[in-house]
Amino acid sequence: MVGIIMGSESDLKIMSQASQILQELEVEFELTVVSAHRTPDRMLEYAQTAGKRGIKVIIAGAGGAAHLPGMVASSTTVPVIGVPILSSNSIDGWDSILSILQMPSGIPVATVALNGALNAGLLAARILSSFDTQLRQRLVSYQSRLEAKVLKSVEVLKESYPNGFD
Amino acid sequence: MVGIIMGSESDLKIMSQASQILQELEVEFELTVVSAHRTPDRMLEYAQTAGKRGIKVIIAGAGGAAHLPGMVASSTTVPVIGVPILSSNSIDGWDSILSILQMPSGIPVATVALNGALNAGLLAARILSSFDTQLRQRLVSYQSRLEAKVLKSVEVLKESYPNGFD
Amino acid sequence: MVGIIMGSESDLKIMSQASQILQELEVEFELTVVSAHRTPDRMLEYAQTAGKRGIKVIIAGAGGAAHLPGMVASSTTVPVIGVPILSSNSIDGWDSILSILQMPSGIPVATVALNGALNAGLLAARILSSFDTQLRQRLVSYQSRLEAKVLKSVEVLKESYPNGFD
Amino acid sequence: MVGIIMGSESDLKIMSQASQILQELEVEFELTVVSAHRTPDRMLEYAQTAGKRGIKVIIAGAGGAAHLPGMVASSTTVPVIGVPILSSNSIDGWDSILSILQMPSGIPVATVALNGALNAGLLAARILSSFDTQLRQRLVSYQSRLEAKVLKSVEVLKESYPNGFD
Amino acid sequence: MVGIIMGSESDLKIMSQASQILQELEVEFELTVVSAHRTPDRMLEYAQTAGKRGIKVIIAGAGGAAHLPGMVASSTTVPVIGVPILSSNSIDGWDSILSILQMPSGIPVATVALNGALNAGLLAARILSSFDTQLRQRLVSYQSRLEAKVLKSVEVLKESYPNGFD
Amino acid sequence: MVGIIMGSESDLKIMSQASQILQELEVEFELTVVSAHRTPDRMLEYAQTAGKRGIKVIIAGAGGAAHLPGMVASSTTVPVIGVPILSSNSIDGWDSILSILQMPSGIPVATVALNGALNAGLLAARILSSFDTQLRQRLVSYQSRLEAKVLKSVEVLKESYPNGFD
Amino acid sequence: MVGIIMGSESDLKIMSQASQILQELEVEFELTVVSAHRTPDRMLEYAQTAGKRGIKVIIAGAGGAAHLPGMVASSTTVPVIGVPILSSNSIDGWDSILSILQMPSGIPVATVALNGALNAGLLAARILSSFDTQLRQRLVSYQSRLEAKVLKSVEVLKESYPNGFD
Amino acid sequence: MVGIIMGSESDLKIMSQASQILQELEVEFELTVVSAHRTPDRMLEYAQTAGKRGIKVIIAGAGGAAHLPGMVASSTTVPVIGVPILSSNSIDGWDSILSILQMPSGIPVATVALNGALNAGLLAARILSSFDTQLRQRLVSYQSRLEAKVLKSVEVLKESYPNGFD
Repeated sequence: MVGIIMGSESDLKIMSQASQILQELEVEFELTVVSAHRTPDRMLEYAQTAGKRGIKVIIAGAGGAAHLPGMVASSTTVPVIGVPILSSNSIDGWDSILSILQMPSGIPVATVALNGALNAGLLAARILSSFDTQLRQRLVSYQSRLEAKVLKSVEVLKESYPNGFD
Repeated sequence: MVGIIMGSESDLKIMSQASQILQELEVEFELTVVSAHRTPDRMLEYAQTAGKRGIKVIIAGAGGAAHLPGMVASSTTVPVIGVPILSSNSIDGWDSILSILQMPSGIPVATVALNGALNAGLLAARILSSFDTQLRQRLVSYQSRLEAKVLKSVEVLKESYPNGFD
Repeated sequence: MVGIIMGSESDLKIMSQASQILQELEVEFELTVVSAHRTPDRMLEYAQTAGKRGIKVIIAGAGGAAHLPGMVASSTTVPVIGVPILSSNSIDGWDSILSILQMPSGIPVATVALNGALNAGLLAARILSSFDTQLRQRLVSYQSRLEAKVLKSVEVLKESYPNGFD
Repeated sequence: MVGIIMGSESDLKIMSQASQILQELEVEFELTVVSAHRTPDRMLEYAQTAGKRGIKVIIAGAGGAAHLPGMVASSTTVPVIGVPILSSNSIDGWDSILSILQMPSGIPVATVALNGALNAGLLAARILSSFDTQLRQRLVSYQSRLEAKVLKSVEVLKESYPNGFD
Repeated sequence: MVGIIMGSESDLKIMSQASQILQELEVEFELTVVSAHRTPDRMLEYAQTAGKRGIKVIIAGAGGAAHLPGMVASSTTVPVIGVPILSSNSIDGWDSILSILQMPSGIPVATVALNGALNAGLLAARILSSFDTQLRQRLVSYQSRLEAKVLKSVEVLKESYPNGFD
Repeated sequence: MVGIIMGSESDLKIMSQASQILQELEVEFELTVVSAHRTPDRMLEYAQTAGKRGIKVIIAGAGGAAHLPGMVASSTTVPVIGVPILSSNSIDGWDSILSILQMPSGIPVATVALNGALNAGLLAARILSSFDTQLRQRLVSYQSRLEAKVLKSVEVLKESYPNGFD
Repeated sequence: MVGIIMGSESDLKIMSQASQILQELEVEFELTVVSAHRTPDRMLEYAQTAGKRGIKVIIAGAGGAAHLPGMVASSTTVPVIGVPILSSNSIDGWDSILSILQMPSGIPVATVALNGALNAGLLAARILSSFDTQLRQRLVSYQSRLEAKVLKSVEVLKESYPNGFD
Repeated sequence: MVGIIMGSESDLKIMSQASQILQELEVEFELTVVSAHRTPDRMLEYAQTAGKRGIKVIIAGAGGAAHLPGMVASSTTVPVIGVPILSSNSIDGWDSILSILQMPSGIPVATVALNGALNAGLLAARILSSFDTQLRQRLVSYQSRLEAKVLKSVEVLKESYPNGFD
C-alpha cells in the first residue's frame, strides 16, 4: 500500500499523476491532504501510524517552503518520496526543491524532479517490486512501452528526414 | 521573554550572537536545542506551550532543509524569527534561506539574513520595545553607538585620505 | 497601529493583502506610498516619526533593488517587516529578496516570502498579539479556520480517492 | 542486498558513509566503481543484472554532469538512489544535483542531498525495512539515538544558558 | 556526414533548426530519435557505430537531466555537440545546460547555448569546413549575409534616428 | 553628444527608451546598430572613432552573451554604459547581465539594470550635466517630477485607505 | 573631483584600489565612510551637497544588502558608480550585486563588477576625461600599458610553447 | 594544427592542460596570449588569419566577462572551443560560463566545462581525428586507458569491500 499525501488540494493536479500510474501498475494506494503548517498534529499522527496501517511507501508533495516530506520522514521509518511542486509565488521551484532535497543527516527523503509526481509513483512501484515479482514484470512492460514509443517516433521521423542508422 | 532555539548544538556558534545582544540590551531570554527532524514531538510541545510560558518572541535557527522556524510557527501564534544558518554541505546557504523564507500564506516567519542571529536578537528587542519604553531607549542608544563607530572610522580615515566633506 | 508603506502605487495589488488581513483581524492600520528613491526625505521623516505617532510595526513592500524596508529600519527602532515584490524586469524576484533580506548586522528587517504581504499582515498581528489577549484569540481562530479548510478538502477528496487514514 | 556504486574511486570518501551506516544497521551490501562515461558497457551490464543478482536497492553516487544514477535507472527496475557529490570544478554542486534530480518522466531516481551518502544508506534501509521487521526495529533504535543525542545537548546547554522549557 | 539525434520527438521543434542550416549549407546529415533513458542499448549502438558509418560530427539535443550528449560521447571518438533544450518542468534550463556542459575530464562534449540548435549545425559545418574548402566558402558567405543584414537595419534606423557614424 | 548602439534591431524596443529620455532632457544623441559578433570590424571602428567624433558617452545594449559593451570599452576611453537586454532563449537575463557586468580590471563598463535603457539615458545625462549647468537643472526638474508623481499617488490612496502620516 | 565613499571601514581594502588608480591618473579625489544604515542623515547630506562641493562623480562601495549607491543616487544628480563588495555572510556576492544593479527607472547607478573598485576609478576617470584632454591622454597611456603587459607575456610564453602567430 | 589562446598569462595554469593532452596525443599546436579587452586588434588579426595559417581548431580560454572565444569566432570560420576559467572575483564561474556559452544565433562556440581545458584539448583532437585515422586510434587508446584505470580501482576496492558483481 502506498500513501499519497499533499500539502493542499491545489497540489492534486500534479499529485494525481502519482495515483494514475499506481493504478495503471495495479498498486494499491490511498490519497489525502495533510498540511505540515496548517495541520501539524494530523501530519505527525499520519507519519506515526503509517507503518502500522500497512503503508510501505509514502509519497508527499508540497510547494514553496515544503516541509511536509521531511517532517513526515522524521516521525516514521517508512521510506518517504518527496515531490517538489512549482507553486505560485515560488522562485522558479528552487524553494520547493531545496526544502525537500537538503535534509540533514539521519532523516532521508527520496526527492524526485520538480512536479515529478509520475516518477514518484514509479519509484514507489519499483520499491514494492523488489518484493513482488508480478509488479516487477508490469514495470518491465511499462519500460518496454516507453521504448516502443521512441521506436515509433523513429519511424515517423524517417518519413521526413534521412536516417541511415535504423 | 525571548525563546531562542536551534536545530543542533553546532548552531550555537552563530545563535549565541542572538543571546549576547539580548543580554547587552537587558532582555530576558531562554535558549535550548529543539530539532524539527530528530525531536518532532518536543518541537510541537515547545511551540504549543511557548505562549503560555510567557514567551513573546521565538528565535529559531536552522541550516540545510531548515524546517524548524516554519514548523514552530505552525503551532503557535507567538511571532517566530527564522535564522538561516550556513551549514556544511549547504548549497551556499540557499537551501536554508529558501526553506525558511518561502512560507505559504497563513503561517508567517520573520526571516533575517544568512547567519543573521545578531539581527534576530535585535528584531526581537524591537518587537518587545514597542511595549517597553526603557528597552526602546536602550535600542536608541545602541543605534547611536553604531553611528558613533562609523564617525570614529571617518576620523581614522582622515589621517590617510583627503576628505572635504566632514 | 500598523503602518503599511510601499515604494509605488503599483505595489498596492500585492500590499493590499496586508491591509485586508489586518482588517479581518480588527487591527488598526494606515497605508501610504513612501518611495526610498523618489522621496528619500519623506521616507526618513516617516521612519523617524513612526514611533512617536504610535506605530508599533511597519510593513514595507518594494521590488527590484528594494531599499525601502532596510532604509526605514535604519531610522527607527520600530520593527520593520519587509515584503519583496516581484516587479517587471526583476530577475525572478531574487533582486528584491536579497536587497531586503541580507541586511548588515545592527539593522534588522523581518523578511517574508516573495509577494508575501498577507503573511506580513499576519506577522504584524502576531507581534501585537503578544500584548493583546483578544487579538491572540482572533489569531487562534484564524489558524483554526486554516485547519478546517484542510479538513474540508480531506472530505472532498474522499469522494474520489481511497483514504484509510481518516 | 544493497548495491553501492560510484563514478570514481575519489567518490569513496563520501560514499563510504553509505556503507558504514548499512554495516551499522546490519544490512548486506556490495560496493564497487562503475563509471557511466569511462565504462558505459560495464554500467549497463551492472544495471541489467542487478535484479537477478538479488540487489534490492542501488545507491549510485557521482559528481559534475552526473549521469550514473539516471543511466543505471534506465536499464533496471530496481529502485536507484542518487547521491550528488560535490567534485572539484563543480559549480557549487548544482551540476551534480540537477543532473541526478531532473530525470524525465518514466525513469525515476531517488535523489538525496549534496554529499548525502549517509542518508542514501538510511533510505535503502528504510526501503528494505518495509519487508523486514527486525531491520525496522533497528531503524527505530537509530532514530531514538538521534533523539537522545539532541536531549543530551539540551542538558549540556542548560549549564551555560537559562532554559525554562525542559 | 553529420548525425543529428534527440531524446524525444518533442525536441524536433528546436533540433530541426540544426538540420535546416545544414541543408542550407549543403552538408549531408541524418536525423533520428535516440533516448538515453528509454533506449539505452540503441544509444550505445548508435555511438559505437557512428564512426564506422561515416559520421564525422554528432549533434545531440536533450532537456532536463540531459544525459544523451555525454553518454554518446563516452562510446565514440567522434566529436559530439550537445544542445541543451528548455523542456517543460525544467528549472529555467539550468538542468539541461549543466547536465551537458559539466562533463568530467576525459569525455568532452561541445556545448552550445540553450535551444542553440542552429549554432550546433553551424559548429558542425565549421568542423567539416576545416577539410572542405568549398564548405568553408559557403560559411564565409553565410557570415557575410549576417553582416549584410545588420547593415541593412543600420539603413532602416537612419530614417528615424540621427546617425553621424555611417 | 551621446552615442547609442545596440547589437540588433530587435533591441530597439528597449533601447529607444534611452533615446526618448535624452530627447526629453534635450541631450543630443545618435543611434545605430553595431553588432560585436556579426560586424566586429564596424564595432572596433565605431569605438576607435567615437571620441574624435565628439561622443562623450556611449550607451551599448545587448542580450545573451553580450560582448558589445565590453568590446567597445576596450577600444576607446569614452565611458561606456552597458544595458543588459532580456532576449529570447536567455537564461532569465543572467547571461546578459554577467557578460556585461563582470569586466576584468582595466576595462570598465557602467552596467545598469536588466532592460534598464531609460536609466542608461539618465546616467549619460548625469555624466554630461557635471559640465552643463542647464542640463543639471533639467535633471533636478526630472527628479522633482518623479517625487510629485509619488505624492500624487499618496493623495489617490488617501481616498481608500487610512493615512495619519501626511 | 571624485568622491569615494564606502559603507564601512572594512570595505577600504577593496575601495582603496579606486583611490590608487585615481592617484596614478592624477585625478583629485576625497575618500570617507558614509553608511546608509548606520548614518542615514549623513548619507543624505553627503548626497545633497556633493554637487555644490564640486564632486563630479561619486564612487560608492557596499556589501550585502547594499543600499548606499542607490540611496546616494536618489538625492543628487551627480553620476554614482556602485561597487558591489563581497562581504562575509554574503551569498556569493549576489546580494550586493543585485541590490546595486537593479535600480528602478528614474534613479540610475553605474554598477561595476564584484569587488571592481579599480574599474570604478577608471570609469570615473573616463567620465572626467570627456572634458579633460590631458586626462584622456593619460588614460590612453594606461590602456597602452595594459596592452604592453600582454605583449610581454606573449614573449615570455614563446620560450616554452610553440607560437607561429607572432 | 590547433591554436590555443588565453586572455591572460594567469590562465596558463588551466590552459596548459590543453597543450599537455595534445602533446600526449601527438597533435601539433601553438599557444599564446591574446586578450579581447587589452589587445582587441591583435585578437581580430589572430582570428582573421587563423584559417590561412593552417589552424584547424582554436581553443580559447578566458574568465569573468569572457569575450575572447565569442569574439574570435565572429571573425573566422575555424571552429572555436571556449574554456570558461574560474578567475578571482568571479561569481562562482557563472560569469565566465554564460559569457561563452550563450552566443547568439550565427556565431557558434563549443563550450566545455568550467576549467575544462583538458576536455577542450580532447575535443580538438576528436575534431581532427575525423580526418586522421591514426589520431583516431590514439584517441581510442586514450579511452581504453581511462577504462583500465576504472577497472584497476575496482580491483583495489575489492580488497576492502564486498563485491559480487565482478
